[in-house]
Amino acid sequence: MTDPIHHDALKAWFLGPRGENAELLERLFTEALRDHVFWRRNYHPEDGFTIRELDKRREGYDRAVATLTQELMGLLAELKRGVPFFSGRYKGHMAFEQTIASQVGYFAAMLYNPNNVAIEASPVTTRLEVEVGSQLAGMMGYDQDEAWGHLTSGGTVANFEALWVARNVIYLPIAARGAADELGVDLEVERADGSRVPLSRLNLWELVNMPPSAALDLWEALWSCGSRAEVHDALHGHSLQTLGYQEYVRRLSEAFGDPLPPSVVLVASTAHYSWEKIVRALGIGSNQLVFIPVDENFRMDPDALWETIVELTEQKVPILACISVCGTTEESAMDRLDRVLEVRERARKELGVTFHLHSDACYGGYAAAVTWDEAGERRSAAQIQASVGRPERESDLSAWPSPDWVRSMEALAETDSVTIDPHKLGYTPYPAGAVVFKDRRARELVAVDPPYLLPTQGLGSAEDLFLGRFVFEGSKPGAAAASVWLSHKVLPLDERGYGHLVERTVAGARRLYAALAGAEMDPFRLVLLPEPDINIVCFLLTHPGFRSLEEVNALNEGIYARMSLSEPGAQPEYIITRTRFQTPMYDGAVDPILSRLEVGSPEEWKASGKEGLVVLRSTVMDPFLADEEDGPDHVGGFIQALQSAAGRSLRELRAPASER
Amino acid sequence: MTDPIHHDALKAWFLGPRGENAELLERLFTEALRDHVFWRRNYHPEDGFTIRELDKRREGYDRAVATLTQELMGLLAELKRGVPFFSGRYKGHMAFEQTIASQVGYFAAMLYNPNNVAIEASPVTTRLEVEVGSQLAGMMGYDQDEAWGHLTSGGTVANFEALWVARNVIYLPIAARGAADELGVDLEVERADGSRVPLSRLNLWELVNMPPSAALDLWEALWSCGSRAEVHDALHGHSLQTLGYQEYVRRLSEAFGDPLPPSVVLVASTAHYSWEKIVRALGIGSNQLVFIPVDENFRMDPDALWETIVELTEQKVPILACISVCGTTEESAMDRLDRVLEVRERARKELGVTFHLHSDACYGGYAAAVTWDEAGERRSAAQIQASVGRPERESDLSAWPSPDWVRSMEALAETDSVTIDPHKLGYTPYPAGAVVFKDRRARELVAVDPPYLLPTQGLGSAEDLFLGRFVFEGSKPGAAAASVWLSHKVLPLDERGYGHLVERTVAGARRLYAALAGAEMDPFRLVLLPEPDINIVCFLLTHPGFRSLEEVNALNEGIYARMSLSEPGAQPEYIITRTRFQTPMYDGAVDPILSRLEVGSPEEWKASGKEGLVVLRSTVMDPFLADEEDGPDHVGGFIQALQSAAGRSLRELRAPASER
Repeated sequence: MTDPIHHDALKAWFLGPRGENAELLERLFTEALRDHVFWRRNYHPEDGFTIRELDKRREGYDRAVATLTQELMGLLAELKRGVPFFSGRYKGHMAFEQTIASQVGYFAAMLYNPNNVAIEASPVTTRLEVEVGSQLAGMMGYDQDEAWGHLTSGGTVANFEALWVARNVIYLPIAARGAADELGVDLEVERADGSRVPLSRLNLWELVNMPPSAALDLWEALWSCGSRAEVHDALHGHSLQTLGYQEYVRRLSEAFGDPLPPSVVLVASTAHYSWEKIVRALGIGSNQLVFIPVDENFRMDPDALWETIVELTEQKVPILACISVCGTTEESAMDRLDRVLEVRERARKELGVTFHLHSDACYGGYAAAVTWDEAGERRSAAQIQASVGRPERESDLSAWPSPDWVRSMEALAETDSVTIDPHKLGYTPYPAGAVVFKDRRARELVAVDPPYLLPTQGLGSAEDLFLGRFVFEGSKPGAAAASVWLSHKVLPLDERGYGHLVERTVAGARRLYAALAGAEMDPFRLVLLPEPDINIVCFLLTHPGFRSLEEVNALNEGIYARMSLSEPGAQPEYIITRTRFQTPMYDGAVDPILSRLEVGSPEEWKASGKEGLVVLRSTVMDPFLADEEDGPDHVGGFIQALQSAAGRSLRELRAPASER
Repeated sequence: MTDPIHHDALKAWFLGPRGENAELLERLFTEALRDHVFWRRNYHPEDGFTIRELDKRREGYDRAVATLTQELMGLLAELKRGVPFFSGRYKGHMAFEQTIASQVGYFAAMLYNPNNVAIEASPVTTRLEVEVGSQLAGMMGYDQDEAWGHLTSGGTVANFEALWVARNVIYLPIAARGAADELGVDLEVERADGSRVPLSRLNLWELVNMPPSAALDLWEALWSCGSRAEVHDALHGHSLQTLGYQEYVRRLSEAFGDPLPPSVVLVASTAHYSWEKIVRALGIGSNQLVFIPVDENFRMDPDALWETIVELTEQKVPILACISVCGTTEESAMDRLDRVLEVRERARKELGVTFHLHSDACYGGYAAAVTWDEAGERRSAAQIQASVGRPERESDLSAWPSPDWVRSMEALAETDSVTIDPHKLGYTPYPAGAVVFKDRRARELVAVDPPYLLPTQGLGSAEDLFLGRFVFEGSKPGAAAASVWLSHKVLPLDERGYGHLVERTVAGARRLYAALAGAEMDPFRLVLLPEPDINIVCFLLTHPGFRSLEEVNALNEGIYARMSLSEPGAQPEYIITRTRFQTPMYDGAVDPILSRLEVGSPEEWKASGKEGLVVLRSTVMDPFLADEEDGPDHVGGFIQALQSAAGRSLRELRAPASER
């Protein structure tokens, strides 16, 4: 079982649903504020005062303070209509309260308002950001000396940047080929199948199928083929970044006869909707998102992935990247990344085809902390199982995690990039997304040179720490870096800290899952979706009288309406959320659910289009839910609220239209 | 002169360089924190306690608190190596302290941690964000009922989104033409020259040159030509977003014979380096950034703009957008936007050519507040001049603002989009950028449908307030919205609030400018750049013994090294920053500087490439600098520090290499 030291620490990590740790939080906030104020006073005390006590007695000053206080009171009143994420009664989206460390870290640094665009505007927090990037890379299993990571405003920008960089790496050999011709050199390179040949011998298909690491080796080798400026200009002159797609496609036709069909991006069919925004914005086009079906556990089907790759290869369609998901936002499902890797390896060997492998671990990335022990060694599934525990009533559930789950997590080390949002399972305030790349050289491919900078000088230099050069965003809050950094200090990225925290949420989700499995919902029947890979419990209710999916959907929409803040002024006892399983995204997952539902058919479901199947969701980010003995019984209360909402929903459905 | 009420209010708006308003700030922070804690306690008080007093006496709890406190102390110590943005001694980048309102607003909302991706996760702050978007649109002079604005993580994402949307609008007529064919309809549309013809009659060139508003009218008309799903599918099937560039270009060749050369984006040659990132990421390509020369005031040259448009038209190169700058980050220069508009109008009438006009007002946008009076009417240049004032010693300076400056500001109302960063001249904490569009229909062109959403229901509905659908980013801090909102409440966007604040910074910059103009720098000579459009003062020093630009650059680099935090452990008396004027960006601006410098020639400067001309910069965001009579003499101190740094820099330059 869990070390009691970590278990008791949990109670000091959060403000608490009753503000139990308010005194602690106020002490730390006040300390940070006063510390900042006295820092100001100590800075050239000889400067005297800009705002004098007499100024504070003027009418204009007084009025301004009155306005400020009044408007703040108004804002505070407004904010009370906010969502009680902190409460055990909130089981909706992936939101909970934040660690005290992250809140205080954010606040303390916000007073200094550093801008992490460049070290000159953030001498402290840029270093903290680089450190956090390295910590996250280490948690993924990357070699920290080779990797590169940084914070972003969120998951969309992080995923966008990963695919933007991936495109540059995948197309790099084409640019390098053009540059080498221009520089009058030839270089030996590695093909997908491992053989080594002169660059000039590769055809277009082979160029786009060079393994990412080989492409970066080629890039590095090229720099010794001429002066810095010559190589720079030659590379830029042939890169997609410079030419743009319109000209690039024309040139490829010219140089290689056939420009190949548009490159595609493979994603699990349940991937987050932001991927569509991303490929649209990048100019790749949403038609080039190739969806790989999921299995009944909502995980990318590796066999289907293989078949898709074979098919694309036959049509000579290049693959830019494959996006595997570690923790879907709807179900917390985790792809069997180890098997995805096997498919990539097989494609490389058997088909001579490769691509950038990215894990969208925006939601699930912090779960990797579970796999590390205090000494920095991996924990086995059995070790983790023992610490998560398995109460009597959960005896019907499989043990968590399975060895496969652990293998999927360990496989993160073999990806080319991973995105992880500290503001999700890292329990830090918004905005804090992150992206880590296995090979730090990749960042040079997207670097820009602002006018005031001369070329990069080396690690740790002001140029190296001018983050705005290597990342998509410019100005960004150093406070976010301080926030994540302090939280990682207090909750280490292993079994003692975040590992323990994530384990407790899984234990809570399993407790809820087991209780729902055993709940008497008469006259309703509760259909549970498969056991979650982390901590999102999905289910839906039905009634013996129902004959159509429409009725089932109406019941569950009614429950959602009564258990959410979707209606203004709603005061639900417990809060959940819902999603819709639509075709074709859920084609591989919906059959077993429909068959257990005993209503509707796959055909009826498919015909319903966007309507799909309404599924209720509970994200258990509350680490306190797992401990039945202490505190309020939020599992029992939840089930009662669910039953009551179902009853009211059904009554409404059956009422004559005039009474609704 | 300024209303004393506003003037005295200024002293209540900031914490102050000595923390003079510390008591006020602590009171408000504490109020916000306790208010939040008691909100938690009032939420289902029957739930009892999750963290008990006895839990706090356990070893694990105690250790966790010790770790937290210790690490926070460590962070606080680190932060003291931060930049003293708050001090009158800091005259470097565009950073100062934040308004108390924005700090307290951020803090208060951060405790609730709302996520402005969707109203469900931020019932309060999403509405505040929409309100702020509308306020900013109003400040630009847009019709608030027609416009649409929102916050972003910063200027890069805001500009990116503006160009992304612009691309969709400009290419919309092509998609609409394909969709209309597919739906078997034809519609009457407006051409650039104002004539109306059937859509089917337009050729490709005319399609990409349809005025943005006509394109959106066409889009709206199309929705009545079939069922929602039919029109949606037909439009999507022909849009660049769906097809991606590679397929799009192929189709254009097929449908119109010639796909036209790649579309370009016009920018002032001094535009921010992030524009290069943006066009690269969008797949437009940096070769398609067409730089328009600037004049000696660093403003886009309207005649050069016209000539470029004529040339591009002759080559049948479509123009996606023209980016005009309102406040360059290096010089705070503002394009004569009124004249840029004249050029666009002339191009439309005489050439049948049009494009999306965007103002990058990330830095200068808040200066528009200066042009509005309390009643919401525009102020004249004379009225503003009277309130800025013009002390005796500044009598050599031209009056600020000029009527042309006011016209440029008023011209913002005629652009298609504007980006404005509250975290720059809005004095709010990072992250807070913003983008506003003149025509809210444009947002529908980039909307995506997450699985859990049915089609839009109308203004104010949950679907309408699901911001993540219409904007590039997903999760983002509701706290940023509360921060900007509260700051706008306390400092209205007119002469009383932000207008007054910006005026004071301009007055401060002018005071510094006049003092530098009159300063005795013996043996050095100070060369001032033209009077700034807002509040960035640029200059450089030279010495009578210098014969080459290299010597001038070395002197000024040496001054910068002594007056910046670029070296670890540096403790400069005053802090400035520097930039480099490089060819070809500054070709139109550098000649008069070189001629006043009396060293080097335009040829020597051009040959130096990236080395360019080192220029020292002082951003005056400090609103207190303007008032000589109160407080410390930071203008005198600055000049003294500058002279001393120059002396030390020169001594180093002249020392034998062995002593350096």
